[in-house]
Amino acid sequence: MTLDFLGNLQRTHRCGELRVEQDGQDVVLMGWVNRRRDHGNLIFLDLRDRTGISQVVLDKEFADEAHAKAETARSEYVVAVKGKVRRREAGLENPNMATGAIEVVAKDLLLLNEAKTPPFSPAEDDIANEEVRLKYRYLDLRRGQMQRNFALRHKVARAIREYLSENGFLEIETPFMTRSTPEGARDYLVPSRIHPGEFYALPQSPQIFKQILMISGFDRYFQIARCFRDEDLRADRQPEFTQIDLEMTFPQQETVFRVVEGFLTAAFKTAGIELKAPFVQMTYDEAIRQYGIDKPDMRLPAMVELTDELTPELREQLKIEQKLPVLSFIIPKAGGLSGTERKKLISEVRAGFGESGLDLLDTERLKTSETFAPLAATITQKLEAGADDLTVVVTPKLGTPEKWNYDPQWIYKRVGALRLQLAQKFADKHGLFTQTGTAEDFKFLWVTDFPMYEWDEETKTWNAAHHPFTSPHEDDIKSGALFNDKGAVRALAYDIVLNGTELGSGSIRIHRQDVQAEIFRSLGMSDEEAKERFGFFLDALEYGTPPHGGIALGLDRIVMILAGASSLREVIAFPKTAKAIDLMVDAPSPATEQQMRELHLKTVVRS
Amino acid sequence: MTLDFLGNLQRTHRCGELRVEQDGQDVVLMGWVNRRRDHGNLIFLDLRDRTGISQVVLDKEFADEAHAKAETARSEYVVAVKGKVRRREAGLENPNMATGAIEVVAKDLLLLNEAKTPPFSPAEDDIANEEVRLKYRYLDLRRGQMQRNFALRHKVARAIREYLSENGFLEIETPFMTRSTPEGARDYLVPSRIHPGEFYALPQSPQIFKQILMISGFDRYFQIARCFRDEDLRADRQPEFTQIDLEMTFPQQETVFRVVEGFLTAAFKTAGIELKAPFVQMTYDEAIRQYGIDKPDMRLPAMVELTDELTPELREQLKIEQKLPVLSFIIPKAGGLSGTERKKLISEVRAGFGESGLDLLDTERLKTSETFAPLAATITQKLEAGADDLTVVVTPKLGTPEKWNYDPQWIYKRVGALRLQLAQKFADKHGLFTQTGTAEDFKFLWVTDFPMYEWDEETKTWNAAHHPFTSPHEDDIKSGALFNDKGAVRALAYDIVLNGTELGSGSIRIHRQDVQAEIFRSLGMSDEEAKERFGFFLDALEYGTPPHGGIALGLDRIVMILAGASSLREVIAFPKTAKAIDLMVDAPSPATEQQMRELHLKTVVRS
Repeated sequence: MTLDFLGNLQRTHRCGELRVEQDGQDVVLMGWVNRRRDHGNLIFLDLRDRTGISQVVLDKEFADEAHAKAETARSEYVVAVKGKVRRREAGLENPNMATGAIEVVAKDLLLLNEAKTPPFSPAEDDIANEEVRLKYRYLDLRRGQMQRNFALRHKVARAIREYLSENGFLEIETPFMTRSTPEGARDYLVPSRIHPGEFYALPQSPQIFKQILMISGFDRYFQIARCFRDEDLRADRQPEFTQIDLEMTFPQQETVFRVVEGFLTAAFKTAGIELKAPFVQMTYDEAIRQYGIDKPDMRLPAMVELTDELTPELREQLKIEQKLPVLSFIIPKAGGLSGTERKKLISEVRAGFGESGLDLLDTERLKTSETFAPLAATITQKLEAGADDLTVVVTPKLGTPEKWNYDPQWIYKRVGALRLQLAQKFADKHGLFTQTGTAEDFKFLWVTDFPMYEWDEETKTWNAAHHPFTSPHEDDIKSGALFNDKGAVRALAYDIVLNGTELGSGSIRIHRQDVQAEIFRSLGMSDEEAKERFGFFLDALEYGTPPHGGIALGLDRIVMILAGASSLREVIAFPKTAKAIDLMVDAPSPATEQQMRELHLKTVVRS
Repeated sequence: MTLDFLGNLQRTHRCGELRVEQDGQDVVLMGWVNRRRDHGNLIFLDLRDRTGISQVVLDKEFADEAHAKAETARSEYVVAVKGKVRRREAGLENPNMATGAIEVVAKDLLLLNEAKTPPFSPAEDDIANEEVRLKYRYLDLRRGQMQRNFALRHKVARAIREYLSENGFLEIETPFMTRSTPEGARDYLVPSRIHPGEFYALPQSPQIFKQILMISGFDRYFQIARCFRDEDLRADRQPEFTQIDLEMTFPQQETVFRVVEGFLTAAFKTAGIELKAPFVQMTYDEAIRQYGIDKPDMRLPAMVELTDELTPELREQLKIEQKLPVLSFIIPKAGGLSGTERKKLISEVRAGFGESGLDLLDTERLKTSETFAPLAATITQKLEAGADDLTVVVTPKLGTPEKWNYDPQWIYKRVGALRLQLAQKFADKHGLFTQTGTAEDFKFLWVTDFPMYEWDEETKTWNAAHHPFTSPHEDDIKSGALFNDKGAVRALAYDIVLNGTELGSGSIRIHRQDVQAEIFRSLGMSDEEAKERFGFFLDALEYGTPPHGGIALGLDRIVMILAGASSLREVIAFPKTAKAIDLMVDAPSPATEQQMRELHLKTVVRS
């Protein structure tokens, strides 16, 4: 086949733009053949570009040469069409296409490139084999859903940048080839050719640099920054991901919250969603007690404590542990199980509890058990349970294992997990996880007052619950708790949560060198070790560091949730697999001998 | 010293914002002590933040406690001031400060943090020792010039993003951990922990990915993207740098030019510079003939060819090579050298010519030499030389070395280099390199029609002058020159040049698999080798690749020139030294044994 050259030909319109207003106009369209239909002397080509599809008609009598070329054009061929827009005859309009009221009658057709038969058609909605999609990512990305996802991602990032810029934030780029940052995951390293045996680290976040920028007086910084973590890849992680990173001087927590609410509202608005700010706010303790988790999914009702309803006498009678709370919750619309379903459910859940010493009552047992029946009405009322909801009450059995006592919150967490498990199981029934296209789909929440330290029972030490630059509450410094009651110290740390997913995490930072040194010491880090790891930063703190704080949010995850996508790979153009492989370009791959020599490296595979 | 807590105190204004309009208002300012002056019962603090400086007055009689705290406050302490704005008394205004008409009378002062005596003061304009600046970058960045540079950089990037977004470009992020790209420099590698002996490469540019995105139908892509090159660092390079990267489908060269002119105009406008578009355009051949270089500095007059003025007879008489051109140029305002200066200059230049077989005439010799005197008027007129300009004529001596014949352009290049050398030497006199703050400071230029191939005399082979995805002229494919006259093949490659610096480089790409394969073959790459290096990309070309093209421009360099800075390090927040070291964080640094073990690596230093 002889291909045509583009020459000086220019598009007049995009394929999705034509309307009856253009009736009679001469136009030039370029794009991909989405479909070809032959009707004797007439050939219809659906021509596709990013904006949509136009129907092109090739009439043998009117444009013989173009018609002949069209006969050879197959799916995914790249063509240019010169023609005239024509209103379709009455009855032949296609109301499902934005351009369905018109068609383009071709005068000339240029065949700009041919296409082999693709392994799957970009016209398909669902392609089962994700490996094939990733290998032929260029074809996969032609699909309408993917085109929309990346247009959305662009709009979201743009709205965020615009909002932050308008609010005095400067976007400042920080290095990618740098030194280990204290985020706790493994670093990716980059060997130096000039300095044998030395390595740069790819940043797990710009944390240190953004704090340095505050020390430098930039007042308000942001960056939409790539970050890198060499983790054992779990379900939906990527070795490189993008975060919206920001930091400000002289803030209170609320100052940070208002900024984040501002840019999220702006971002969601680009997708037609009007969020209501300020977002709900609760402390870590409240979140645990009401949802059993520090990232509550507020699309579902909270847990309800029935401790008061079950009197000590009743507990004794029921063999329920006195010291521990009795928790209950409902799963909306999941009531009305058949006997078999109910039996299966209960046996599953009990198996899950294992040695935990918990027991479970559901709606049915509540109503029918002689002991509980008198309580059923109270419980139902307290839970605001409807007739078609599933009610679950979890009771700690007498003699609950002693080990749980280390963590007074364990029962809340365990029941919270059950709540999520059942909510997922009955998602089809309650429908609360299904997007409706309104703000109701998106339940945002701030969780505050995280504990500063976590007790490690094994090593009998306190660990930082966050990175070691997080400031304790001013009150807990003033009161001396920082020095003598670590378990009571609250961090000025906060998370933003959307639909049970942690979108981002931030804190007011330590700006005083004496407090920072104390935190390092309290974490068991010697002064030398602290100096070795963060020496330059400890120095910087001594030269006039202002109070500052900030946050980082995962852009990929925000776009994923907003797009209603099921995986980060749907909103990252060239993602890696769970084994951290890029299937399209085939990376990673072996280095050449020369590269290894230049980098002073040898591969040693230990068994 | 006891430090104060910020508590819930919030700023009402930034330090640079206050004017007489705020006279009488209660305000809260926070910032750094730029300077303290004691006048008995009065202490004056200049309080600084990103926006500027306000004078704060502490009156012992009025605010005893605040005054006492102010006595302890030294330079770079971080303080918060609660006070009232007061118009300064007549005669005490400071017209050099934006806030010079007012001062803030403090009621309360909070000492938020102290500061050690810094190694240099952020109030200084010039700090000689760049190593100290880089080590204490957090202090260096406090300096007014650096604050302005990064505010400018933010505005420039924002304007570019905004322009491109408005013009249908989607910003799409491409991977950082990927496979070697064919940019010709060394890759930085990232060892894989999961795949022993395998490595990712950091991208030298997003070249392949942006072409893939065009194949995917995204129509118009851009990204402000970090790129990485492990080069032996020359004068002003950085191992990581930022480029404005874009690509579009179905373009002509001019389509790309208009987009770039559009975003540059928008970017320069944010700095108050109104550029005139379209920019000047010339072919590579014209650039070489007129400026002796492919990145002409158009702030200076072009070279002028005097070949016609020097008749063959005259040349023979003067012992000038007949086949070679006689070139001349002026350096404005650099005439009127003293005898000694002139002698020194000529001897310097001649030494520079060395064995090149060139000779040189200057204004003086032109006027006084018996042979040349009759020509002097003609030459002066042709060069439009003024009385105070330095005129230089370069003649190739009879018997010019044969080796130059390999490159018919050598004399243009050599004289072009001399032109730049002298322009630099006499910069103070002509003043053309000094910024005036107008569009005249910025001479943009498109250079087009680069040769597709370069002949390597040593290996007797043709090499690609650009990366191997650059398309030849359509005419040179049609004519068959691509296959049988490589030296004549023009590339659809173009550079954008500003003041003699190449800002960016781009091309219309090859979209046809047959042409791409031919280019690889013509570069001596076997089909297997091509498949091994670019297999997935050659595959992609076969599935319906549209004509496409693009460009990449160095953001760092644009901001540097616009800021009038002398080095990229002035516009990169955390740059590396010429040895690729980050002096602040001390990177690169040795890896731990555990890291080496996990990465299956051993360092082997070969002598």
